[in-house]
Amino acid sequence: MSCDYVALSNPGVQLLQPYQAGKPVEELERELGLDEIVKLASNENPIGPSPQVVAAVESGLAGLTRYPDSNGFSLKQRLASRFAVSPQQLTLGNGSNDLLEIVARTFLREGTEAIYSQYGFIVYPLVTRACGAQGVEVPAQEYGHDLQAMADAITDKTRVIFLANPNNPTGTHFSNQAFDAFMARVPDSVIIVLDEAYSEYAAAIDTPQGLQQLSRYPNLIVTRTFSKAYGLAALRVGFAVANPVITDLLNRVRQPFNVSSLAQLAACAALDDEAYLQRTVAVNAAGYQQLTVALDALQVDYIPSVANFITLDLKQDALPVYQALLHEGVIVRPLAVYGLPRHLRVTIGTEAENLRFVAALKKVYS
Amino acid sequence: MSCDYVALSNPGVQLLQPYQAGKPVEELERELGLDEIVKLASNENPIGPSPQVVAAVESGLAGLTRYPDSNGFSLKQRLASRFAVSPQQLTLGNGSNDLLEIVARTFLREGTEAIYSQYGFIVYPLVTRACGAQGVEVPAQEYGHDLQAMADAITDKTRVIFLANPNNPTGTHFSNQAFDAFMARVPDSVIIVLDEAYSEYAAAIDTPQGLQQLSRYPNLIVTRTFSKAYGLAALRVGFAVANPVITDLLNRVRQPFNVSSLAQLAACAALDDEAYLQRTVAVNAAGYQQLTVALDALQVDYIPSVANFITLDLKQDALPVYQALLHEGVIVRPLAVYGLPRHLRVTIGTEAENLRFVAALKKVYS
Repeated sequence: MSCDYVALSNPGVQLLQPYQAGKPVEELERELGLDEIVKLASNENPIGPSPQVVAAVESGLAGLTRYPDSNGFSLKQRLASRFAVSPQQLTLGNGSNDLLEIVARTFLREGTEAIYSQYGFIVYPLVTRACGAQGVEVPAQEYGHDLQAMADAITDKTRVIFLANPNNPTGTHFSNQAFDAFMARVPDSVIIVLDEAYSEYAAAIDTPQGLQQLSRYPNLIVTRTFSKAYGLAALRVGFAVANPVITDLLNRVRQPFNVSSLAQLAACAALDDEAYLQRTVAVNAAGYQQLTVALDALQVDYIPSVANFITLDLKQDALPVYQALLHEGVIVRPLAVYGLPRHLRVTIGTEAENLRFVAALKKVYS
Repeated sequence: MSCDYVALSNPGVQLLQPYQAGKPVEELERELGLDEIVKLASNENPIGPSPQVVAAVESGLAGLTRYPDSNGFSLKQRLASRFAVSPQQLTLGNGSNDLLEIVARTFLREGTEAIYSQYGFIVYPLVTRACGAQGVEVPAQEYGHDLQAMADAITDKTRVIFLANPNNPTGTHFSNQAFDAFMARVPDSVIIVLDEAYSEYAAAIDTPQGLQQLSRYPNLIVTRTFSKAYGLAALRVGFAVANPVITDLLNRVRQPFNVSSLAQLAACAALDDEAYLQRTVAVNAAGYQQLTVALDALQVDYIPSVANFITLDLKQDALPVYQALLHEGVIVRPLAVYGLPRHLRVTIGTEAENLRFVAALKKVYS
C-alpha cells in the first residue's frame, strides 16, 4: 500500500481496540460442531420474547420499505407517559451504546477528559478515545465505583463522568446517599451519565433511580435500554433522559434514522407488557438464588450482584475454564479485557440453563 | 439553568442543525386529518417489501432477546460472494448514513477538511461539522458535481472527499471518464467516499460502478444501502467496501451492535431476491417516463435524473406549492435546506401514485 492509512486516521482511532462481543451461538456451533448450546455470555433475557412484542413487530412488516419516524413520535409519547418525563427530555438510540457515543460526541474532544471507574463498562473508554478525549480511570473499591475518588478526579478539563448503576461486568451498585454525596461535589458544568442498563433488576433496593433524580440535577443524563429486562437486544433500542437543552444537543448529533421502525414498534409494545417485565425480574431473582447456592456449594467465589449476571472469581487464570465450558456447550464471558483475567461473568438464565451451567462447571472443576 | 450547556458542547455541535426528515404519513394524518396519503418524499421503494424478505424477518422473531452477530458473519459472506469482494473489505452500517458518519469519525477532526459538492447530500456537511472539521463546499456545475473544481479544492488539510453518484437531491451523475480524470489528480492520502445509495437505478449507464474500481484505488470507500432499491428503509442497513486496512479502522469506530439481527436477515434475503430488484428498476424506469411526459405537458421544468426521484424547478418559491400538494394528500420534499428554494423533489412512485401526484400538481397549478 502506497499510503499509511492508520497513521492518517484520527489519533484516538489509532488507540482503539474493537469491542469484543460475546461469542454468538452460531459461531460456536460452526467451530465446535456442537448443538444444544447454552449462551450465558451477553446478559440477555432468558425467557424469550413477549408475544405482544412479536405481534407488534409483525404489524410493521408491511412497512419495511418506509423510513422510520425520525422523531420517534409514538415511542416518545409512551416513554413520557410511562416514566413521567416530557418528550422534550427524550433522545432515542440504537441501543444505549448509541446514546453513550452521542453524549461523548456532543461533549468530548481533544483537550477534554472523561472519568469512569475501573471495571466500568468498556464502551466508556472506547467512545472517549474515539473522540480524541483523555479517559481517566479511577480505581474501583471492592469492584464497584469509588464515587468520592471519582469526584476527587474532576479537573478543569472534565466534561463527562460515566457511572454504571448497577455496574457491568461486576454487578455492583451504589446507594442513594453515596450518589447524593457525590453529586453535591460535582459542578453543574460536568455532565453525569448515569447508565441504568440493568436498573430494572435493582428496582427494589436502596440505589438511585435516575429518572427520579432529573429534576434535581440539570447536568444529569440517564440512559436506559430495551436490550436487557425488556428483551429486545436483537432490535437495538434505548433512550436517554435529560433536561431539554442537553436533549436538543444530543438530538443534533443523533443520526436521523438511528432507531428502526420495528424497534420503535417493539419498544412501545414492551412498555405495555408489564407482566413480562415482572416475570423477567422474578425469574432473575430465582436464578440468582439457584446459582449462588450452587456456587457456595462448589466453593466458587463470586461478586454479589444486583443485576442479571454473576461474576465469578476463580482465583486462577479463567481462560482454560472458559474454554472447557465452551466444550461442554456453555458460553460465558471471560473478563481479561476488563483487567479481570481470573474472573468469568455468567448471565443468569432459566432454571434449566442454570442447571446446565452448574453441571458443566462441576465437570470442569472435577 | 445555572449552566450554558450549548456553550459547553463541542464547537462543531453548536453549528449543527438537525437533519429534516421527510414528513411521515402518520404526522400528516395527525395534522390534516387526511387519509389515502401518497408519500413521495423520501425516495422509498414504492412496490412494497419482498415476500422473501418478510419471511426472513419473521424467521428471526423468536430470537428477539438475543444480540445481533456483532461481526455480521452471514451477511458479509453473502455480500462478498454477490459483489466479488472479500469479507475483510466490508463494514456494515445502520443504513449508509451510519457509514458516512463512521468515515468522518475515523479521518476528520479539528484542523482537517472535507470536500463535498454544492447540492450534495446534506449528511456530508452534518457529519463533517460534528467532528469539528472544516467543510469545503464546491459550487455545482449544472446541479451536478464539478469534479475538476473539487480536485482543485484539495489542500494539505483535506482528508476526505464525499462524492454522491447518482447525487441526491438532484439526480445527476458523472461519467467514467470524468471519475478517472478526477482520481488521477487525487493523492492516495485523501479518502474518496463514493456514496452509491442510488446506484442500482443507474447500472445501465456510463458511470463508475464503484465496486469495480476498488482494486485500482487504495483510498476509495464505496458506500451502498439497502434502503432504496432493496426496499429495507425501515430496518436500517448499508455497507461500505474499501481496502482491508481502512476497513479495520472503520470497524474500530463502528458500534459493536450497529446492525440489528432482523436487518441482517432481511439484507441476506434481499440479496437473494434478484427478481425484486429487477422489478424495482423496471417500475422506476416506467415511472420516470410517465412523470417526465406529464411534466413536459404541464411545462414544469425538471433536472434530468438517473435515480428514483425527479427534482422540479418551479421558477418560483416552492413552499406554497409544497403546502398545496400536502392539502391534496401528496407529500413531496422541499429543498430550501439544500439552497434550492424554488425546487421540489418528488420520488418516483407506482403508476397510481404518480397519477395522484400529477393530478394534484395540475390542480395546484390551475
